[in-house]
Amino acid sequence: MVERRKSIKVNEALKRVIKYAPQGSIHYIPIHQSYGHFLGDDLVADHPIPPFDRSPYDGFAVRSKDTEAAASTHPQNYEVIAEIGAGSVFTGKVGKMQAVRIMTGAQVPNGCDAVIMFESVKEYEACGKRYIQIKRRLQQGENISFTGEDAKSGEVLAKKGTYISPGIVALLATFGYKQVPTSKKPTVGIIATGSELLELDEEIQPGKIRNSNAYMVQSQVIRAGGEPYYFGQFSDHFTACFEQVKQALDQVDILITTGGVSVGDYDYMQDIYKELGAEILFNKVGMRPGSVTTVAKKTGKLLFGLSGNPSACFVGFELFTRPAIRKFLHAFHPLLKKETAILGADFSKPNPFDRFVRGRLTFHQGKLVATPIGLDKSNVVSSLGAANVFIEFPAGTRGYKQGSEISVILLDDM
Amino acid sequence: MVERRKSIKVNEALKRVIKYAPQGSIHYIPIHQSYGHFLGDDLVADHPIPPFDRSPYDGFAVRSKDTEAAASTHPQNYEVIAEIGAGSVFTGKVGKMQAVRIMTGAQVPNGCDAVIMFESVKEYEACGKRYIQIKRRLQQGENISFTGEDAKSGEVLAKKGTYISPGIVALLATFGYKQVPTSKKPTVGIIATGSELLELDEEIQPGKIRNSNAYMVQSQVIRAGGEPYYFGQFSDHFTACFEQVKQALDQVDILITTGGVSVGDYDYMQDIYKELGAEILFNKVGMRPGSVTTVAKKTGKLLFGLSGNPSACFVGFELFTRPAIRKFLHAFHPLLKKETAILGADFSKPNPFDRFVRGRLTFHQGKLVATPIGLDKSNVVSSLGAANVFIEFPAGTRGYKQGSEISVILLDDM
Repeated sequence: MVERRKSIKVNEALKRVIKYAPQGSIHYIPIHQSYGHFLGDDLVADHPIPPFDRSPYDGFAVRSKDTEAAASTHPQNYEVIAEIGAGSVFTGKVGKMQAVRIMTGAQVPNGCDAVIMFESVKEYEACGKRYIQIKRRLQQGENISFTGEDAKSGEVLAKKGTYISPGIVALLATFGYKQVPTSKKPTVGIIATGSELLELDEEIQPGKIRNSNAYMVQSQVIRAGGEPYYFGQFSDHFTACFEQVKQALDQVDILITTGGVSVGDYDYMQDIYKELGAEILFNKVGMRPGSVTTVAKKTGKLLFGLSGNPSACFVGFELFTRPAIRKFLHAFHPLLKKETAILGADFSKPNPFDRFVRGRLTFHQGKLVATPIGLDKSNVVSSLGAANVFIEFPAGTRGYKQGSEISVILLDDM
Repeated sequence: MVERRKSIKVNEALKRVIKYAPQGSIHYIPIHQSYGHFLGDDLVADHPIPPFDRSPYDGFAVRSKDTEAAASTHPQNYEVIAEIGAGSVFTGKVGKMQAVRIMTGAQVPNGCDAVIMFESVKEYEACGKRYIQIKRRLQQGENISFTGEDAKSGEVLAKKGTYISPGIVALLATFGYKQVPTSKKPTVGIIATGSELLELDEEIQPGKIRNSNAYMVQSQVIRAGGEPYYFGQFSDHFTACFEQVKQALDQVDILITTGGVSVGDYDYMQDIYKELGAEILFNKVGMRPGSVTTVAKKTGKLLFGLSGNPSACFVGFELFTRPAIRKFLHAFHPLLKKETAILGADFSKPNPFDRFVRGRLTFHQGKLVATPIGLDKSNVVSSLGAANVFIEFPAGTRGYKQGSEISVILLDDM
């Protein structure tokens, strides 16, 4: 009576997901909406940076050779012949023992090859003219940011698939990207199944729980970079549910169902996949929790059958659905980011399968420390909100001591 | 001619910002919109978790005392008298040597005190009845999640001011928060000043640069948790600009200007603050970059005068504006998160002032490594997009070797 399924390893399952996950289209959006998207094309400099020799400070531009004799015991005086604000250009000629007052970011006048900061000079007036006094020799090129020293014209400054952070937004603006090529976010449909589910405003009833997965997964989709669309809780009746899944799939890029994938008698997602003509990539993974996570493909789209158990649902989404969303987004690194950390507490369970334990990553004296959540039953629920990594305990291991080196998968990776 | 300003230390400046930054109101939003907000009230369990003794697996519920004699050499047989799916409740009586087929999450029937997984039993039929065979003794309470073992009713599971992650969303749903109390996001107005600024679709001109700060700061505001409102580039003409600033301030919770705060002749934000009747909290900070960062307060609102220099603008925002936004949001930890890391490359500059260098934090063999960006001029621009920390070099230090322990401030802290 128990359906026998062929279990595959996590890495093999992930390979299949990545192989069949489709990539989305590229479209242009206004720069002020681009933060949090992924670059749909290389970001290329359309001009050198700096675009001209400029002053990094408010100060005075001079010819360095005129300061050769300047010393604290032997100050030199320079006539201030003009002043230029950022954005203005001085087109005159700067002669011997002359200076131009210059603002941060302004173009250094022709002939000048050094800038001295306001704070380092003494200013005075005499005979209706303005002067500064300099007490040291300036180097050629001192306090000048030269044309192209930060970036050349035509240089690729960020590759396609880069996450658009505030720093990337600054680059996009600098190089004139009023419209930004970005990867279209996948629409990710979510369907909850399970006759034990109560809506959020229903009173708790014997045997039933409120439908937390649907809302949790919606926020996981947003964090991963997709746009969730919640279809609601579907019927446990096969025919009705089949029609609902079929129609939902037509409307989205990726479809997630929660529940209905166990080998329990009331779990019929497998039959729905068959009826749909979807090809099942896998329906059992050698891992805990989430072993029943099922992924199928149908006409180029992926269907994720996540467990109805909240922990297993959470893990199944992050391990398999997130990389698919990231591939859709043309992300430079679609896979989960794995790091080494020190285990913050003993973990004594045996691990017949790869085990992914929700944990809290913290930093202690420059080291990564990951502590499993849920060992202390009394705070398992409250600490779930604080989980930011999966701690990975490989199959075939038995118990880890506090201080052991372990692998962690980062959940907040941007 | 140079205005003399009194410089204060970064920590003192931050103290003043936090002291005068206002806190916003609390309002209720639908749970599916709550991800990324901050909790406006404590999250309280309205029922215990689990709400009833439940099965964590698909299996069979039995009375453990009936398995006392079971062993691999001496299997025992149990009649399966009923089956219950998740969400259903079995109200009958389970007698001696009887079992109930039970699905994950379902309530354990009265009288049963152990569950054995599907995979561990042999099922068969005989004389029109269904049976299972068990080959080992079960412990009392085996495979049962007991009422309230994860959380008690009335327990605070997340405090007011907690960032709403997908895990918190799951808790909110579990405890029936269809509407979630959240902190109102501050509206943050942004005004760019500076006659050197070109709009993004303008061709590069001598002496001018494109207006990158306005767009960069908009995305920084979003990352910090605020809602940016860009007023555009304002006049360099005092009277016009004053009116514009005054009107903008009325429309937002926090107002940011970029540019116009240096001691340069064309920088008149100080005069605007005076004319507004705003009290200046500070207008010089002993730090690089961003020393001219100015913060003023007016009728309970803060005005941030950030530098027009992109690096200084970026640093000034993160150090001072972000904590103000977080305080507005009632964030549990409004201050910047500081960690220890290993320096990834030599940094040889002297630091007469506290210096905040944009860097890239990476993890190597379980350790935090932070590498300054911009040491190698050839990639300073492209690496700005990848910066995720400030490396802090305290005033009075001179040069740090690769491998030194240093402090870093995390920019992506959620």
